[in-house]
Amino acid sequence: MITVVILGSGNVATHLFKALLASKKATVIQWFSRNTAVLNEFKEIVEVTNDLNKLKNAHVYLIAISDDAIEGFSESLPLKNSLVVHTSGSVPMAALSNKNRAGVFYPLQTFSKEREVDFKEVPLCLEAEYTEDLKLLKVIAESISSKVYDINSEQRKSLHLAAVFVNNFVNHLYHVGNDICNENEVPFSILKPLIEETTKKIVSLDPLQAQTGPAKRNDQKTIENHITDLEKSLPQYKELYKIITASISKTYGREKL
Amino acid sequence: MITVVILGSGNVATHLFKALLASKKATVIQWFSRNTAVLNEFKEIVEVTNDLNKLKNAHVYLIAISDDAIEGFSESLPLKNSLVVHTSGSVPMAALSNKNRAGVFYPLQTFSKEREVDFKEVPLCLEAEYTEDLKLLKVIAESISSKVYDINSEQRKSLHLAAVFVNNFVNHLYHVGNDICNENEVPFSILKPLIEETTKKIVSLDPLQAQTGPAKRNDQKTIENHITDLEKSLPQYKELYKIITASISKTYGREKL
Repeated sequence: MITVVILGSGNVATHLFKALLASKKATVIQWFSRNTAVLNEFKEIVEVTNDLNKLKNAHVYLIAISDDAIEGFSESLPLKNSLVVHTSGSVPMAALSNKNRAGVFYPLQTFSKEREVDFKEVPLCLEAEYTEDLKLLKVIAESISSKVYDINSEQRKSLHLAAVFVNNFVNHLYHVGNDICNENEVPFSILKPLIEETTKKIVSLDPLQAQTGPAKRNDQKTIENHITDLEKSLPQYKELYKIITASISKTYGREKL
Repeated sequence: MITVVILGSGNVATHLFKALLASKKATVIQWFSRNTAVLNEFKEIVEVTNDLNKLKNAHVYLIAISDDAIEGFSESLPLKNSLVVHTSGSVPMAALSNKNRAGVFYPLQTFSKEREVDFKEVPLCLEAEYTEDLKLLKVIAESISSKVYDINSEQRKSLHLAAVFVNNFVNHLYHVGNDICNENEVPFSILKPLIEETTKKIVSLDPLQAQTGPAKRNDQKTIENHITDLEKSLPQYKELYKIITASISKTYGREKL
């Protein structure tokens, strides 16, 4: 059994812990958090500590803390020549202290407290300084997910940027849609089948082919009506509308809004 | 049986025709298109014509043509006091010629040739000049969909605008994500579970609550890194990144990018 210590107690740490509970290849032998109170509900099933000096020996130390804190935290670990991996999309592997063997175990998914995630479907992006360590990470990863990828730091950085567009930014557009509905007293739920179909479409179609709408058709009349309507009711979204419309026009070879 | 004549031969017309084939309350007795060749595959199961003077008597005439053409086309129909409805999200009911009784039968979904759509899940937004006509449209609508709504022209206009954000604009962000992946030689498919989860989240969570990412956290370091990376590889998306990030910051009470 591969032994794992988790360091951190946020959403990623918690979802990883739950996924590893079901693994037949790896087991979490200890969970570190500065504030162990947040781990109360897990105390019966795993050893919990808030003292870095009491860390157990393990094959892998999984750091799941905020991006900014990874570098300093990895330096502060009282470990030597151990396999220490972080779980961040945007932090390069080289940010980890060279006292230990570095690696990355990045689950490319959005995690929230409110929702359970089927970990089998979560892409895991792996990287390691040493081939043997990469093999070990792969054994763990394949025991909890069916989507495991070798991804270097440059590629991971670009994936993280792409994820900001398709996840964070998309969610913001849902919020704008919601605002427009509220403003006009129509239920946002009318839009949900459309939202689902938009996503399903790109499973079979390239997004470039799937594009529809006034910006793609260069339907200036509708575009101007939309801008006028936003101006009147929700002016804070006018620039957003213009910039995205211009970007679509540019993509399809029409430069001018 | 309620008799229907469809006018137009695009995606909406075709998907409506197929949905009505399965209806137990309504039947399409004729299909008009200027170019009947495009309707070849349906000639065995429905009468097809390209001559407006040969239109049959029917309870409802469904216009499914491009938005710009609706007004003029409805004026050109050799009909009087018939129920003539259009299927557009952005055109007001009043655009229809007053020679006939006006109505709207707007399916709020994205239709493409390549994909079959489960019409039961397509929201149908109805409007009619006369109460009796609205009742008739409702009977037809409820025979093909489980999601039928009374929506006036103002509300429909706002729904159409919201749909542009959650469908057309979202799809463009998928395209940007795809471009970033291609640029860095990682498969876009790695992002698909994230894309699906982003959509599923808002079924149970308000998009305002579901928001995550550097813009929401005000993580300036990551934001600046992303802008620098776009500058180098895909500068055409830099403004898009900045504007959406600023809009998220504003939503969560941080004015400055």
